[in-house]
Amino acid sequence: MKLNCDLGESFGAWTMGMDQAVMPLIDMANVACGFHASDPLTMFDTVRLAKQYNVEIGAHPAYPDLVGFGRRSMKCTKEELESLIWYQIGALEGVCRANGTQVTYVKPHGALNNDMMNDLGLLSTVMQATKAYGGLKLMIPISRSYPEHLKMAEQLGLSLVLEAFADRAYTDEGLLVPRSEPESVYHQSAEIVGQALSFARDGGVYSRTGKWLDLPAASLCIHGDNDSSLQAAREIKDALSSLK
Amino acid sequence: MKLNCDLGESFGAWTMGMDQAVMPLIDMANVACGFHASDPLTMFDTVRLAKQYNVEIGAHPAYPDLVGFGRRSMKCTKEELESLIWYQIGALEGVCRANGTQVTYVKPHGALNNDMMNDLGLLSTVMQATKAYGGLKLMIPISRSYPEHLKMAEQLGLSLVLEAFADRAYTDEGLLVPRSEPESVYHQSAEIVGQALSFARDGGVYSRTGKWLDLPAASLCIHGDNDSSLQAAREIKDALSSLK
Amino acid sequence: MKLNCDLGESFGAWTMGMDQAVMPLIDMANVACGFHASDPLTMFDTVRLAKQYNVEIGAHPAYPDLVGFGRRSMKCTKEELESLIWYQIGALEGVCRANGTQVTYVKPHGALNNDMMNDLGLLSTVMQATKAYGGLKLMIPISRSYPEHLKMAEQLGLSLVLEAFADRAYTDEGLLVPRSEPESVYHQSAEIVGQALSFARDGGVYSRTGKWLDLPAASLCIHGDNDSSLQAAREIKDALSSLK
Amino acid sequence: MKLNCDLGESFGAWTMGMDQAVMPLIDMANVACGFHASDPLTMFDTVRLAKQYNVEIGAHPAYPDLVGFGRRSMKCTKEELESLIWYQIGALEGVCRANGTQVTYVKPHGALNNDMMNDLGLLSTVMQATKAYGGLKLMIPISRSYPEHLKMAEQLGLSLVLEAFADRAYTDEGLLVPRSEPESVYHQSAEIVGQALSFARDGGVYSRTGKWLDLPAASLCIHGDNDSSLQAAREIKDALSSLK
Repeated sequence: MKLNCDLGESFGAWTMGMDQAVMPLIDMANVACGFHASDPLTMFDTVRLAKQYNVEIGAHPAYPDLVGFGRRSMKCTKEELESLIWYQIGALEGVCRANGTQVTYVKPHGALNNDMMNDLGLLSTVMQATKAYGGLKLMIPISRSYPEHLKMAEQLGLSLVLEAFADRAYTDEGLLVPRSEPESVYHQSAEIVGQALSFARDGGVYSRTGKWLDLPAASLCIHGDNDSSLQAAREIKDALSSLK
Repeated sequence: MKLNCDLGESFGAWTMGMDQAVMPLIDMANVACGFHASDPLTMFDTVRLAKQYNVEIGAHPAYPDLVGFGRRSMKCTKEELESLIWYQIGALEGVCRANGTQVTYVKPHGALNNDMMNDLGLLSTVMQATKAYGGLKLMIPISRSYPEHLKMAEQLGLSLVLEAFADRAYTDEGLLVPRSEPESVYHQSAEIVGQALSFARDGGVYSRTGKWLDLPAASLCIHGDNDSSLQAAREIKDALSSLK
Repeated sequence: MKLNCDLGESFGAWTMGMDQAVMPLIDMANVACGFHASDPLTMFDTVRLAKQYNVEIGAHPAYPDLVGFGRRSMKCTKEELESLIWYQIGALEGVCRANGTQVTYVKPHGALNNDMMNDLGLLSTVMQATKAYGGLKLMIPISRSYPEHLKMAEQLGLSLVLEAFADRAYTDEGLLVPRSEPESVYHQSAEIVGQALSFARDGGVYSRTGKWLDLPAASLCIHGDNDSSLQAAREIKDALSSLK
Repeated sequence: MKLNCDLGESFGAWTMGMDQAVMPLIDMANVACGFHASDPLTMFDTVRLAKQYNVEIGAHPAYPDLVGFGRRSMKCTKEELESLIWYQIGALEGVCRANGTQVTYVKPHGALNNDMMNDLGLLSTVMQATKAYGGLKLMIPISRSYPEHLKMAEQLGLSLVLEAFADRAYTDEGLLVPRSEPESVYHQSAEIVGQALSFARDGGVYSRTGKWLDLPAASLCIHGDNDSSLQAAREIKDALSSLK
């Protein structure tokens, strides 16, 4: 079970995230590519940091919306979407390449991620764009539709990395309970670590109504934006280590 | 003698340049990378067009200044400059890679190009950044300092492509006469074609005062923004063909 | 019956629209404010041109989406929407004020315009934002819901300018036939001038099925992006003059 | 002696500055206008906060360089500079106007501020642009050239607000010692408060070599980006109060 985190989300003079502290804890860094956050120098810094800790580097492409942090849906044509994905992966790869490392996967950000999980046509475009770039895995959230997603990917010859969340409640359908609903986000270490272990050891999790969900995730998304999320990340890492 | 042209300089809903008409005439396309012009979809279109005509694709990186078209100097640190060059090359390479082609060279744009030709430290940074990316040539304007530039590049293991202008008068120092001065730009076909032939056949050109300049350029920069520049490009191409 | 046109839509080095030719023909100029098109210098030029021809100046605010020309919906909170409208009106007013003129109305652009006509809550926000700025009319497309729109505006103490299109077919509901449908846009002068006269003289128009629609528009939107739209604008202007 | 501070420098999802804490301490808020920092919603929040504490609102216009935070010189023509100043003042005024308040002065930001203090032609353009907008004062750093600056402004009918720094050492020429030099910035409360009192009570300050400088500043610039600058601001405010 690999830990991933969204990183490199500073922009120019503005800092976001505790990248220095979180990088040693994770296996996979989802690095912003300049469309919702980051800029070339921030990417340079982030890539060097990832390399130092031997962390896999993933492109975290987004809709072109800096002021909205890529959290707003934007209707794009298929060609617009493909080209903005290639542009962003390539931009990060350019920084990686000059620093003796490389991009190994793609994880769409924010509204683009949400939109593709709600629209198989869009997901198919993202898969095809990732495949066309070549040599990369695609990270998507795991849900009860994961067998269908795996099948779509397989037909393209694309590898998926299914990710889950240790700190979020799941619905009976295997979707994240929306943040707007009560008890959607766990704040207690015990709960968070417990759910991480459940994914890692048992290949699934209980929904909020107590129904067991088989969700064989390969990666857990952790957060590095404040002390408490960092502490949770450390505890998850320790708990997972004890499994080995 | 190869012909190169700055292309892919449309942006979103705005069109610039007659790319469809000029692509068949050239050997090397300097493609804007989104910082002074272009956007992912424009790059996608430009890359497909270049591939169709078997034209070499070069990255045309610039300072981050869309509204100023990259024509204003911006003081950048060495790391800022390196990372913005890698970002832009990589972004174009991402689009190329997904379309079965590749970037083969870099030609800095506008103020970045001018600044590096006036500051050997900056030129050295651009050379190092290009070398660090790997596998690319660097296109720079030829001047009487070209032996020094070749030496700098050689020490880095970098190949240069020296470019000249058929439609611009040269000073005795082998520099372009600034556009602000009279008779700096040729408008007559005879003059333009004559200077192209002089570069191609004789490896140099007479300065505006009549002094011979050895300037062994490997590429001529032509323009594709209006009918008259397009006509000149066609005549240059024909004249050069007749040399072979 | 006043003629209005979207103007000032160039951006930096990119030109759009034939502003010099169209300004003498119109009464009201909808000037882009830098979010979907334009930049401070373009606004300066446009304001001077409008002043020269004694044309009323309206702010043409849009979602923040330069690369998409403001044609993509972006989900904004009420406060985001209010503030981006105030920002854009104010920016144009700043340029006007320094040049001895002023903004007199607001016409939302592109996707923002469409969205507000499909969502009364959004329209109400736009009305309130315009009212809060103070001293301005709001231009919106006329449809069969116009009495409701007038009532909403009246309750806020806001004046509306209802605009119609001479070159577009109307549905029985008094909406524009979508451009994606056949015969949605008129290309013959006779048709365009005829519809302009129908709005001006008879206060309405026949729908595409031949049903009469009372649509008492106060302004007609004309286009200035090519020779043919310009020619149509001239003919409309002449025809309307002959009515007086 | 009025206290001013650069505020409203957050951008989208990124926070900068402790605006909530610093606003109650100051008399004049220099509010970013979206070119080096801020966005319409941040401006809306900042304007409401300033209004709540009855703080004067000034426009803080900058070169268009978000990623560089307006700290890089950009060569602009006179008309570009005028129009970008009008645009930014107007944009802030738009937000103010809708909230029942107004802009009362202009303080150029970062590189634009530095550039105008090193180039009287540029300063003259900024003065003329401010005057053309109408009804505003211009805040500039005080130096030994202040009589000349006052004279330039007087000839235009423009009021200046001369600002000084309590935490920066001054050269014998009455300029700030560059941050790159040792002992250019004071960190001890005693020094900072002492210099504030010296400006307020004695109309000047001793240079770093011990030479007295008559510098009759009307405003002191304080900082609100960390706890220590905030503490210094509180002490300055208390010390100045005790003078009254």
